[in-house]
Amino acid sequence: MSIMNETIQKQLDHRTIREFKDQQIPEEIFRLLIEVARRTATSAGMQASSIIRVTDRDIKKQIAEICMQEYVARAPELLIFIVDQYRNRQIIREKNGPTENAGDMDRFFSAFTDACLMAQNVVVAAEALGLGTVYLGSILNDAEKICEILKLPELTFPVVGLGIGYPGQDPQLKPRMDMKLRVFENAYTIFPNYLEEIKDYDEEMRTYYDLRDANRRVDSFSDQVVTRYKMGLPKRQDILNVVRRQGFDLKVNGDK
Amino acid sequence: MSIMNETIQKQLDHRTIREFKDQQIPEEIFRLLIEVARRTATSAGMQASSIIRVTDRDIKKQIAEICMQEYVARAPELLIFIVDQYRNRQIIREKNGPTENAGDMDRFFSAFTDACLMAQNVVVAAEALGLGTVYLGSILNDAEKICEILKLPELTFPVVGLGIGYPGQDPQLKPRMDMKLRVFENAYTIFPNYLEEIKDYDEEMRTYYDLRDANRRVDSFSDQVVTRYKMGLPKRQDILNVVRRQGFDLKVNGDK
Repeated sequence: MSIMNETIQKQLDHRTIREFKDQQIPEEIFRLLIEVARRTATSAGMQASSIIRVTDRDIKKQIAEICMQEYVARAPELLIFIVDQYRNRQIIREKNGPTENAGDMDRFFSAFTDACLMAQNVVVAAEALGLGTVYLGSILNDAEKICEILKLPELTFPVVGLGIGYPGQDPQLKPRMDMKLRVFENAYTIFPNYLEEIKDYDEEMRTYYDLRDANRRVDSFSDQVVTRYKMGLPKRQDILNVVRRQGFDLKVNGDK
Repeated sequence: MSIMNETIQKQLDHRTIREFKDQQIPEEIFRLLIEVARRTATSAGMQASSIIRVTDRDIKKQIAEICMQEYVARAPELLIFIVDQYRNRQIIREKNGPTENAGDMDRFFSAFTDACLMAQNVVVAAEALGLGTVYLGSILNDAEKICEILKLPELTFPVVGLGIGYPGQDPQLKPRMDMKLRVFENAYTIFPNYLEEIKDYDEEMRTYYDLRDANRRVDSFSDQVVTRYKMGLPKRQDILNVVRRQGFDLKVNGDK
């Protein structure tokens, strides 16, 4: 008996798609993706996450600028998944209940997790329908500006963006490190020498062609890590201050 | 042409499974789930998330106690998804690069998001194979204790737990609110009266039988929200202090 099935085959074949055909996603398909989002697991059934569907060309451009990725403006569908504790706080207010916990970090992280689960569920559904997707963690290059552009009220916060469309490119499957470095039994396992452990992977990565950079070869994984972590983007590092400005109580010790 | 397919049909049929058959998941299937985790999208390709597979009975029990859910100890597979910036920091150290950004909140949130995406991808794959799953946000009832039990080193952090096994129950599909309350075009939409908007949903929820509580009827959604948000669990609210203890730099203004 083969344990493989179509769902998993597609999941194993996941590639990020950054260029799409100039073709809208039929509304019927979009509605189906939203229904998948709706059926996603949610912490305690609270459904404290939402989606902003960006259709306005000007707003798409503004978001693309924040992302520093011009192709974002061309994504046929652009969804921004958000933490949303605003709705439930309003429900409590309308019932004259106590609202002070709606903005605590417990609710923030539960909703943040929910938003991510929903995004990945939509990604799997989209890919099962032959669509391509690109995650946009880059919306957090300026979380405050995203809040402003999308008019995000108190107790909401942007989590991740997602571009969806019919694939306009067919990238190579990107090499990944061995899961023995990422799955541990009962306790975290520290390896004495990571460079030794990833030697083959480092080499494999150098055979990968990244479509982003005009098909040039990429660095080894370890070189990519060094380069990438040299960058400390102040606005991205300051994310918790924006979380607080959105009305959440960070409850950081020694900080009132 | 029907747009429905098997993948999406399963996604729309998602239910949380809390009771499993006393039957282990074959190792071949477990390996396939891990391969799906491996192929999940990851921020900038950095793969800064990991999984602790809990097989030890005593550790399972300790985690079940933290979760305050005794069925957690009986889950055939118990996975804890974690933020993992430890590995990449070690790689940078071994290459004598600068490590100071590895513990910033940008990296924390990127890795947190990655861990969630990976978890949901595993959930979809598991359900496609006829397995059932239960998310355990409750591991964060005591994040510090989880770090201790699983020996999580600096720059790692628990995100969410997941129980997996062959379903030992067949719960009703749980009602969800209308997505017009959760999907907005171009800007967040504030409704003047949420109780009015969720009136039918509130009623529908009262027809739902929750297997958790001996098949008794549940409250309306709005009543559930009020009850649930009355609880402010101090350790859960204090999550950022544990994040800081794990070596991350919160960079909260006015807090040094």
